[in-house]
Amino acid sequence: MGEATVRLDPAFTVGPVRPRTFGSFVEHMGRCVYTGIYEPEHPDADELGFRTDVAQLVRELGVTTVRYPGGNFVSNYRWEDGVGPKADRPTQLDLAWRSVETNQVGTDDFVDWARGVGVEPMMAVNLGTRGIQEAVELLLYCNAETGTSWPDRRAKNGHTEPHDIRVWCLGNEMDGPWQMGHKTAEEYARVAEEAARAMRRFDDTLELVACGSSNRGMPTFGTWERVVLERCFDLVDHISAHAYYEPVDGDVDSFLASGEDMHRFIESVVATADHVAAVKGSDKRIMVSFDEWNVWFQGRFDGENSLAIREAPELIEDVYDVTDAVVVGSLLITLLQHTDRVAMACQAQLVNVIAPIATRAGGGAWRQTIFHPFALTARYARGTVLRPAVVCDVVQTKAFGPVDQVVVTATHDEETGDLAVFVVNRSRTEATTLTLDVAAAVGGHDTAYALVEHLTLHDDDTSATNTEEHPDRVTPRPGDAAVAGSTLTATLPPTSWHCIRLSEGTVQ
Amino acid sequence: MGEATVRLDPAFTVGPVRPRTFGSFVEHMGRCVYTGIYEPEHPDADELGFRTDVAQLVRELGVTTVRYPGGNFVSNYRWEDGVGPKADRPTQLDLAWRSVETNQVGTDDFVDWARGVGVEPMMAVNLGTRGIQEAVELLLYCNAETGTSWPDRRAKNGHTEPHDIRVWCLGNEMDGPWQMGHKTAEEYARVAEEAARAMRRFDDTLELVACGSSNRGMPTFGTWERVVLERCFDLVDHISAHAYYEPVDGDVDSFLASGEDMHRFIESVVATADHVAAVKGSDKRIMVSFDEWNVWFQGRFDGENSLAIREAPELIEDVYDVTDAVVVGSLLITLLQHTDRVAMACQAQLVNVIAPIATRAGGGAWRQTIFHPFALTARYARGTVLRPAVVCDVVQTKAFGPVDQVVVTATHDEETGDLAVFVVNRSRTEATTLTLDVAAAVGGHDTAYALVEHLTLHDDDTSATNTEEHPDRVTPRPGDAAVAGSTLTATLPPTSWHCIRLSEGTVQ
Amino acid sequence: MGEATVRLDPAFTVGPVRPRTFGSFVEHMGRCVYTGIYEPEHPDADELGFRTDVAQLVRELGVTTVRYPGGNFVSNYRWEDGVGPKADRPTQLDLAWRSVETNQVGTDDFVDWARGVGVEPMMAVNLGTRGIQEAVELLLYCNAETGTSWPDRRAKNGHTEPHDIRVWCLGNEMDGPWQMGHKTAEEYARVAEEAARAMRRFDDTLELVACGSSNRGMPTFGTWERVVLERCFDLVDHISAHAYYEPVDGDVDSFLASGEDMHRFIESVVATADHVAAVKGSDKRIMVSFDEWNVWFQGRFDGENSLAIREAPELIEDVYDVTDAVVVGSLLITLLQHTDRVAMACQAQLVNVIAPIATRAGGGAWRQTIFHPFALTARYARGTVLRPAVVCDVVQTKAFGPVDQVVVTATHDEETGDLAVFVVNRSRTEATTLTLDVAAAVGGHDTAYALVEHLTLHDDDTSATNTEEHPDRVTPRPGDAAVAGSTLTATLPPTSWHCIRLSEGTVQ
Repeated sequence: MGEATVRLDPAFTVGPVRPRTFGSFVEHMGRCVYTGIYEPEHPDADELGFRTDVAQLVRELGVTTVRYPGGNFVSNYRWEDGVGPKADRPTQLDLAWRSVETNQVGTDDFVDWARGVGVEPMMAVNLGTRGIQEAVELLLYCNAETGTSWPDRRAKNGHTEPHDIRVWCLGNEMDGPWQMGHKTAEEYARVAEEAARAMRRFDDTLELVACGSSNRGMPTFGTWERVVLERCFDLVDHISAHAYYEPVDGDVDSFLASGEDMHRFIESVVATADHVAAVKGSDKRIMVSFDEWNVWFQGRFDGENSLAIREAPELIEDVYDVTDAVVVGSLLITLLQHTDRVAMACQAQLVNVIAPIATRAGGGAWRQTIFHPFALTARYARGTVLRPAVVCDVVQTKAFGPVDQVVVTATHDEETGDLAVFVVNRSRTEATTLTLDVAAAVGGHDTAYALVEHLTLHDDDTSATNTEEHPDRVTPRPGDAAVAGSTLTATLPPTSWHCIRLSEGTVQ
Repeated sequence: MGEATVRLDPAFTVGPVRPRTFGSFVEHMGRCVYTGIYEPEHPDADELGFRTDVAQLVRELGVTTVRYPGGNFVSNYRWEDGVGPKADRPTQLDLAWRSVETNQVGTDDFVDWARGVGVEPMMAVNLGTRGIQEAVELLLYCNAETGTSWPDRRAKNGHTEPHDIRVWCLGNEMDGPWQMGHKTAEEYARVAEEAARAMRRFDDTLELVACGSSNRGMPTFGTWERVVLERCFDLVDHISAHAYYEPVDGDVDSFLASGEDMHRFIESVVATADHVAAVKGSDKRIMVSFDEWNVWFQGRFDGENSLAIREAPELIEDVYDVTDAVVVGSLLITLLQHTDRVAMACQAQLVNVIAPIATRAGGGAWRQTIFHPFALTARYARGTVLRPAVVCDVVQTKAFGPVDQVVVTATHDEETGDLAVFVVNRSRTEATTLTLDVAAAVGGHDTAYALVEHLTLHDDDTSATNTEEHPDRVTPRPGDAAVAGSTLTATLPPTSWHCIRLSEGTVQ
Repeated sequence: MGEATVRLDPAFTVGPVRPRTFGSFVEHMGRCVYTGIYEPEHPDADELGFRTDVAQLVRELGVTTVRYPGGNFVSNYRWEDGVGPKADRPTQLDLAWRSVETNQVGTDDFVDWARGVGVEPMMAVNLGTRGIQEAVELLLYCNAETGTSWPDRRAKNGHTEPHDIRVWCLGNEMDGPWQMGHKTAEEYARVAEEAARAMRRFDDTLELVACGSSNRGMPTFGTWERVVLERCFDLVDHISAHAYYEPVDGDVDSFLASGEDMHRFIESVVATADHVAAVKGSDKRIMVSFDEWNVWFQGRFDGENSLAIREAPELIEDVYDVTDAVVVGSLLITLLQHTDRVAMACQAQLVNVIAPIATRAGGGAWRQTIFHPFALTARYARGTVLRPAVVCDVVQTKAFGPVDQVVVTATHDEETGDLAVFVVNRSRTEATTLTLDVAAAVGGHDTAYALVEHLTLHDDDTSATNTEEHPDRVTPRPGDAAVAGSTLTATLPPTSWHCIRLSEGTVQ
């Protein structure tokens, strides 16, 4: 049994909790859209064809912003194919995933769905096979007041009011050779610059996201960001980062420490962005849009060229276990720890495709294990992210060397005084005792905190998963946290995630 | 009272007066087209919707060649939107000027108008958001004999005969980051090269204008021209130059000497073009197309992003005073002084938008102050431009150091023997006496000259302007030129422009 | 009378005879398509409008693979114009050849024709005025199973089954400034890379041909291939080479030795490709697609800009004589000699335009002189290409210095045991005796060879040609080859081509 001591003080802060940290991602890929969020034949479908059972889970998940429609898909997507009367929409072959795309869901439909479930749509334009003009046309279709051709077409398609989409991705993973119309850094920097300039000419208040690296291991990593930002610094607000994690060659210790990679990724991108700012003599701070992240067993995927051409195929529908859920919980902790520079993040994806929500066509919808840490973090992280002082044992990992056994973040809601503490024990073998200095949390003020709840995701069988038949096999359960005087203590079993909530009150 | 002595000799020439020096510019911007040249609801509209009162002023102005349809507008223009039945033309949002473009005037309409008022249309292709193919298609639409798709479409739209447009601009101000689809020098050089080659494949006798710099202060000035011409030298005839002048920080002295900047601009572009010729071992001489120039109070313009989205907005409708007219007159003198290398020039723009002609929607049309020096120069500059020898006082300027107080050019019509002398006194404070050596003008021949007319643009109130109510507040008036023996003398008040005409006769 | 000794041994081989070595080329140019293969008004036209007399000659010629639709034509071609109901197809102006293109023949029609005459279609995409997306769309139109938009359009146009075209050219002669949308090496390398990647995403088994140099004299020769392959090495199978030969300044000696140039061309491209392989540490071998080659009197062609705009004009309809036929025969020998690295070759073009088959509109179709060496080589070259040992006199040439008087290749059909020997005497003045060591040919085995036939193309009048009236003026005639013991002897007159066939049997 190890020991971990955590001190909190509301005076030591990182930055605000940003709602967009809890974003997700709907790509036209596999069964994310079709038989995922959309299945008009389903008994629970609404009048637009969207599954209400899935929508209910999306609301429960607490997703805020949803990126759409890709992903690799967008780089060969003609958005015009997906608007207008459904019967007139062409069926196309999407080469990103070698899938038959019926276009029964498109821009307007997605926005309808997003508004219905209360999430903010975040749109990506195709800078793969298309360019500036088409990007502008989509923007005008979505956001312009009626009176000219493109918004009039939107109105004719049933949406008189502009969709008013605020966040736009300038393409997707353009650094990746797998991308249709992949670009060199210089090429991408130029097309992003010109597309951004044209889009800003219509609306200078848009938030624009330039493509960063598809992962930290790309051969162009770092250089790509520098070259892109040298061109686009004044024109974009965010630069994207994507990362997927899995146990490599069975190395679960390193897998549990995936947050270290995400941390270094963010730090590197921030350093690059601030370098460009320094060269330009600018005080502007480019933010990170970590708009694809998750656990993904890529080793199980044989590559796009291996895929048969099908409609809504079962594509990378990874089934997550307890370890995966703990890793997802720890990645959210990492994102919150960087809330000063990470403006948004999108777990990829929302339904079926490496997703927290699983469905069966014509059947049920259920929560995967990873649903729970996301939902609880999204629900209870409020106010300001605090910077805790942690003293704990270390775990040896092959990928990152020695790392802290315990990772922790906490948020403090100035209005209610509520504290939420999120903790992961990254050891596969060692439990540890958490000692949280609650007195420090109150910073010497008279206010004190009372324990509200301690929920934990943990299971003696770390390979346990949820299924349609047993959807609650893995679910949060009460932990043993207790407050004595000014000290909260709790047991953190191996491979466990925790949400500990405190409210203002008297120190017990 | 200063003194200025000018000697003229028809043997000392610069080059021919080129009709295209008196070009203008109609851009789809502000009210240049709509409620400018075109207003079908106006009582004076002809059957095509063009205002006959404006047309009459255009004829009087003596405009020869009119560039169309932009300007920044062209770089996001789909010319197909502007042809065919007017009821079927889409309304688009032009991002160059954030204006609602109804497309009620397009290529065919403009050509109709141009032929009606007796001017030559000069067409620009969109190399911003579009490329080679669309440029070729517009060319075929305009100039091909019927028998294939594009010219057949023109015929179907009522124009069986080709428009036979001789001068084509390969895009507009592609060096400017404000331009939709702005290019680096290398990028532009390549697209211009390939577009030019394709267009010449259709018609090798076209005159093609490559984009030069948007102004002499561009960071890429000079290098841009070199890079572009290294690629396009054999494929283009002209390279463009654009310049707008205004008093910077109230510095009227420098403003009156704006011709110095234009002079240095032309010299620099010529040097660059001839450098490329030297490297290529070519005797070809690339000519300057000064296809945007004027007085423009840019300081009063808050930038495109500040503009509200409107249809035919009142956009940069500068009202010109006497000083502005004198500057315009002096710029025309500079252009004539470089007639050996300036093949054409377009005052920008023709109506309402920083224009010599002003209109009120539903109301009148009148001459701004700058109308007059343009009209008189265009009317009387004939034959060959002479190279005068000038001795005069200097004016100190902040921008250019000491400059000649008096600038002068003269033209000599070999057929009629007529001489036209254009003079500006650039001093704000000092009048000067002009002594013109008329004997020298006849170069020792028996022929002598008689004074025909001395017109001057001047006013004790240099801020006087013309309005719809007082359209002739500022208008040319007779000067005091007189000939005694072989000597013409005239008084040049401060800030004054002069046109002195002599005809063959006996020296008085 | 010179002497030439040739030893053959089936153990010494170059590689397999590749059927695609005997490819040809149908471009929408001149009268190759219209009044060439297609002439619906012709008495011999079939129900699709194709001339059956021409088709019969194509079958006799033994053509295997036919490249389509260009050539320079493809680089400004919109393939969509050529599919669907013929009455709806637009007439366009092709700028490559300044020709009126009626689009009455297009992709589906060509494939129909190709299947009818038993040749494999080889398709080129437009990377001049178009890009990745249109290339993919054409690929899907041709090769995808129905169920999505593009193949469904093909089905609607009467072709439910995919065309299943295996070989695709990534543009045409993109290194040539005459090409619409010509590219620099870097530009082409990038667009070819991305187009190839997108096309392979649909079908990784396609054979893709990157553009190499338009001829060995291009200023970018060698560098172009290196730059293109550095980008596209893993994505393409072949790199193209184009070469046309003619007597330069009347130098027939060098003309007869044109195979030397082709040989050096192939060797240079192979060296470049293998250099890139070495740098990449790859064992992959890029093959040469010599997809345009022939005798062409380019000196008689005044350039594209000189052409009048016409429909199906008589364009470069060179009439070939005996010397030309001998050169064509020798070039086929060169191609076979390089069968280890030349995967395909296309004589350019098939009908009328520098072609083996000539037609008269409404009239006959006949074999030009060059038809014969092609037809006989295509018919009898079978099995494995042998590497002969040749000892012979030399001919002095201006272009290549001293070259072997006699060039020879031989093929050995392992199944039938047949040997075919192709020989050219490249001397304009000297006959030579060929001594073929037949014993060596059997490599010490018991098998021996009997003479089957000796055909020769030769005429005392080397300027003799075929015409519609005298279509067999120049035609293969028996030679004097005879076998005595293990030795075959034959006379090779000056400027003569020979096909000598031997079958298994007893040495006579």
